[in-house]
Amino acid sequence: MGIDEGRYRVIIEGMEPEIDGGRFPIKRAIGEKVVVEADIFADSHDALSCLVLHRKDGEPRWEEHPMVFLINDRWRGEFTVTELGHYRYTVQALVDHFKSWRQGLVKKFDAGHDVSVDLLAGGDLVEEASGRAAGSDAKTLKRLALSLRSVEEPTKRVQIALCDELAELMAKYPDRELATTYDRELVVVVDRTKARFSCWYEMFPRSCASNAGRDGTFKDCEARLPYIASMGFDILYFPPIHPIGRTHRKGKNNTPTAGPNDPGSPWAIGSAEGGHEDVHPQLGTHEDFRRLMAKAAEHGIEIAIDLAFQCTPDHPYVKEHPEWFRWRPDRTVQYAENPPKKYEDIYPLNFETGKWEELWQELKGIVFFWIDQGVRIFRVDNPHTKPFHFWEWLIGEVKKNFPEVIFLAEAFTRPKVMYQLAKLGFTQSYTYFAWRNTKWELSQYFTELSQTEVREYFRPNLWPNTPDILTEYLQMGGPPAFMVRLVLAATLGANYGIYGPAFELCESQPKELGSEEYLNSEKYEIKKWDITRPDSLKDFISRVNRIRRENHSLQGDWSLRFHPIDNEQLICYSKQTKDFSNIIVVVVNLDPHHTQAGWVELSLPDLGIDHRMPYQMHDLLGDGRYLWHGPRNYVELNPGISPAQILRVRHKVRTERDFDYFM
Amino acid sequence: MGIDEGRYRVIIEGMEPEIDGGRFPIKRAIGEKVVVEADIFADSHDALSCLVLHRKDGEPRWEEHPMVFLINDRWRGEFTVTELGHYRYTVQALVDHFKSWRQGLVKKFDAGHDVSVDLLAGGDLVEEASGRAAGSDAKTLKRLALSLRSVEEPTKRVQIALCDELAELMAKYPDRELATTYDRELVVVVDRTKARFSCWYEMFPRSCASNAGRDGTFKDCEARLPYIASMGFDILYFPPIHPIGRTHRKGKNNTPTAGPNDPGSPWAIGSAEGGHEDVHPQLGTHEDFRRLMAKAAEHGIEIAIDLAFQCTPDHPYVKEHPEWFRWRPDRTVQYAENPPKKYEDIYPLNFETGKWEELWQELKGIVFFWIDQGVRIFRVDNPHTKPFHFWEWLIGEVKKNFPEVIFLAEAFTRPKVMYQLAKLGFTQSYTYFAWRNTKWELSQYFTELSQTEVREYFRPNLWPNTPDILTEYLQMGGPPAFMVRLVLAATLGANYGIYGPAFELCESQPKELGSEEYLNSEKYEIKKWDITRPDSLKDFISRVNRIRRENHSLQGDWSLRFHPIDNEQLICYSKQTKDFSNIIVVVVNLDPHHTQAGWVELSLPDLGIDHRMPYQMHDLLGDGRYLWHGPRNYVELNPGISPAQILRVRHKVRTERDFDYFM
Repeated sequence: MGIDEGRYRVIIEGMEPEIDGGRFPIKRAIGEKVVVEADIFADSHDALSCLVLHRKDGEPRWEEHPMVFLINDRWRGEFTVTELGHYRYTVQALVDHFKSWRQGLVKKFDAGHDVSVDLLAGGDLVEEASGRAAGSDAKTLKRLALSLRSVEEPTKRVQIALCDELAELMAKYPDRELATTYDRELVVVVDRTKARFSCWYEMFPRSCASNAGRDGTFKDCEARLPYIASMGFDILYFPPIHPIGRTHRKGKNNTPTAGPNDPGSPWAIGSAEGGHEDVHPQLGTHEDFRRLMAKAAEHGIEIAIDLAFQCTPDHPYVKEHPEWFRWRPDRTVQYAENPPKKYEDIYPLNFETGKWEELWQELKGIVFFWIDQGVRIFRVDNPHTKPFHFWEWLIGEVKKNFPEVIFLAEAFTRPKVMYQLAKLGFTQSYTYFAWRNTKWELSQYFTELSQTEVREYFRPNLWPNTPDILTEYLQMGGPPAFMVRLVLAATLGANYGIYGPAFELCESQPKELGSEEYLNSEKYEIKKWDITRPDSLKDFISRVNRIRRENHSLQGDWSLRFHPIDNEQLICYSKQTKDFSNIIVVVVNLDPHHTQAGWVELSLPDLGIDHRMPYQMHDLLGDGRYLWHGPRNYVELNPGISPAQILRVRHKVRTERDFDYFM
Repeated sequence: MGIDEGRYRVIIEGMEPEIDGGRFPIKRAIGEKVVVEADIFADSHDALSCLVLHRKDGEPRWEEHPMVFLINDRWRGEFTVTELGHYRYTVQALVDHFKSWRQGLVKKFDAGHDVSVDLLAGGDLVEEASGRAAGSDAKTLKRLALSLRSVEEPTKRVQIALCDELAELMAKYPDRELATTYDRELVVVVDRTKARFSCWYEMFPRSCASNAGRDGTFKDCEARLPYIASMGFDILYFPPIHPIGRTHRKGKNNTPTAGPNDPGSPWAIGSAEGGHEDVHPQLGTHEDFRRLMAKAAEHGIEIAIDLAFQCTPDHPYVKEHPEWFRWRPDRTVQYAENPPKKYEDIYPLNFETGKWEELWQELKGIVFFWIDQGVRIFRVDNPHTKPFHFWEWLIGEVKKNFPEVIFLAEAFTRPKVMYQLAKLGFTQSYTYFAWRNTKWELSQYFTELSQTEVREYFRPNLWPNTPDILTEYLQMGGPPAFMVRLVLAATLGANYGIYGPAFELCESQPKELGSEEYLNSEKYEIKKWDITRPDSLKDFISRVNRIRRENHSLQGDWSLRFHPIDNEQLICYSKQTKDFSNIIVVVVNLDPHHTQAGWVELSLPDLGIDHRMPYQMHDLLGDGRYLWHGPRNYVELNPGISPAQILRVRHKVRTERDFDYFM
């Protein structure tokens, strides 16, 4: 115990947000607030003063914001993060003898007690504060101390004791000698806005050829950019763009042996042509890739690439670094397996190798190589099959120099593993959204993601489909199912993505019944997509993405609230800005086959809507306008026309006159 | 990051019990279990092995107990504490390559794959384990490794791979090189059984005189011991026994000026005769006190004294250590106040003094002085008006040498302050019980105390009355109200106490309407209690305390469960031992005026009762026996006869034949 610690009287505990006792940072995007709460109390009944302290890493001084008392010893304060990188925050609190003195003085004076000695004691407190102040503040405090001790009649001196000028100056120069500072400094990782609000489009570059008979290239991708931009996507994500192995290459539909023209899976990385820092020769060159990124930027699109840390038997690492692989007693390399299944085309890296430090450095080198090429967004393949400490280190190293980099974790695994990856640094995370179809499932899951501590570190990214996931819902429901899932993804999640053009073309044939694999999956063959097909959902998608851009409430996840609706096939939820200037209510018919109708019951006070006034609901999808009254209103959705409404509340601003009129 | 840390693949988090990230210990009594749970997982899909480690402070080695997998990455293990003092516990987990290998081998073999290379790999793992073993274990492992690698046909070798002997030996010698140990060692404070199960009786020694006309002494208390023992109390607690100040002494009913014969409040400590280490001359001597303690012990009673760290203006400290008090500008000592109220007879100690270390040492000296006299139980007066750090230090210092000492915190204040005092070391704590009267209040509060994390550190001690607290319920309800509150205190809480003889004599006159103070309070005058009065509740109290001693389920708080009953004036709850050998169901009529009846609805599976069998309910209070069937049964309680039933479930042991008969 330090020399003065025994006199520290204030306890600070129950800090929020604080992840696992401060072991992990929370996340924010630039411009967002951090609202800090804590239980703060001291012995006895003295008044307290409490502050939230914060500073950007590297800044020498804390910035301070006063906290306000809530109830039951709970205090709250807040600050705003304005720059990329790491901030620290903590709480400081002290027993405020001046405040206690002031409160006691009023009570005694009102009770008619003699307060002359009390006024002298107050004079001493103010005199001491003047010693902590400088310049004119010090002078003013000295003058006020004199007045408190003067021979003026007590009423006048009590007035001085209670004046705002004195209170403000005393708050400015508190006695911090015995102040308690919370024993942990907590960290906020501040990302760019795209970490919170983004719209992903996944596409295989090799399927983008403008004319049949040859493989697509980065140049072909350039031609596809206007199409993607017109739909409103701002991130274009490519499966791995590296050379593909030959040994044990898979054929069409994942058959064990490939024909001579089968291109192989892009996730089977490494061949005689190179490894993770090389580009598949048929796609083009590094220069082509850099030019594509520049062109994409002109369309407001960023290119994201895939980090899939695994090798084929042909990857240069196998010969150059046999110590990075696990060897079997028969002197062959251990391939991937999930007994009894074998994946002989894939050699996992052995993170338990004695040479793990060299391996880590090499993998870090890959990431920095692509950062040098201009990439700032990485989708990470199966991060849950590599050690957690590795990711924490790698992401930390990257963000030290490039805080703008975004990592999306593709981990479809157990909840605690997914949350752990988010805690240790991943910017965004895939979710179970694809398999949450009923009202109960959706409302449970998204309440957990948006209303519990999870939201402090886990930023969900919602994908209705991926090259690995064609859900039964999409297989069975026809185009309305795709529209339903798109609206849900785009409005439940500020971050979402689709795998196209399979999605907008409503590709729905599974490899076989009960399988979530696509028939003739693009993972194993080059596809020709007719993106001009008249039944494409591209206009619908464009509209939804425009609504997202134009309505600020859809650009974050935390305001999500579900509202009751008396039909299990209908789901209703809202998002809003804090000032109620933008309120969106979404109603979706989860049944892609039949018209469903029901009564929505909105919680009007939560939405800032006056229950005595009618309000206009403007369907931004179908452009219809409805006049609603009170909390209960009727909705009917025909999936053949539009399975959803995205309603913008256009209610009258409450004025005194309105109230008078109705009362 | 340490040299090997990068290869540690296991994450351990979500530890329970763990108070505030390990900042505070949990509490147990000797012989109790600590059940430890944690979320434990690694990357990929390898099998894990997890252990709970624990050791008594000072023991060089951890004891280990295996944990079992529950669900959703949660594991559980347990250990038992058997000695007074501090234990530490933590969790260790590792990726178990042998277990993974064994699971994979079965699947591959069952699928008809060639497992010859796998068997060789297993042989390597077993060979390695033999290097970690010694003696015959090492030999056996070597032999088994050879068998796995032999030329025997695979079926036989797979049998060896799966045999129990191998599994057990491999579990005994795991490869801990890359094991993860949880990064905190958590602490259990182990108290004696009385910390969990105790029965307090508070009494003013000065009111114990056998004949009127003189003050009671310690010798008079000796004569009172058989009476107290006959009621079944095992702790006799005295208000402060020290000299009482004269300056500003309070008169009868707390009047500002005392008459010449008014004895003053025992909490006004210190006079010319001495301070906190002295005995009030009218009570006797230190020797008398020690003899009283010895006599009490013969009756199975321990004496508890009061630690009230405050002084009157006459306390020797005021002259000897003016630096331990706060001084006003008029050179007088600051008395206690709660503006506009003044307590001029009390000078609080100033814990913000620069000489705080000397003050702490002096107060510690007081506690050790009384420990030297033989005291092992302290009731601490208003601990929330002294700094938290002081108590943590003081209790820590005491328990280092005297782990059997019990501290009861008398803090009736805000919930977080009360919980904080318990966290930092108080063995037992007063509660809000006195003011929880309705079914909703009681079930909410005692569910919080017995079913949440609070129970790990906060041991409630339930008092229906104290010299400061005569509740309105007791004022209004006559003897049935006293019986109701006694049964509730004695069965909801394994620790409870009463202030007598006021309690058993149903003293219920308040100082004035709306006050919780007693009229002619014993705090300010010496009382003559007629403990032989025929309407005394002493026999009722004896009976309740005998039931507590004879029924193990009432000797702890954690098994408490409330059961629905369809009358708001009736409350029903149960406690049980883990093996169901002792099950108590309590039904109380909270209305002291009217007969109330209703249907209890027991959760039979939780009580281990077969719903197809009738079961006997034996009322240990009234000695009635009732045959109940199924979950719903009728209860009727007349407060004029007995406002409560304490029912012991005497159900038939379930046998196979019983099931046959009813099925």
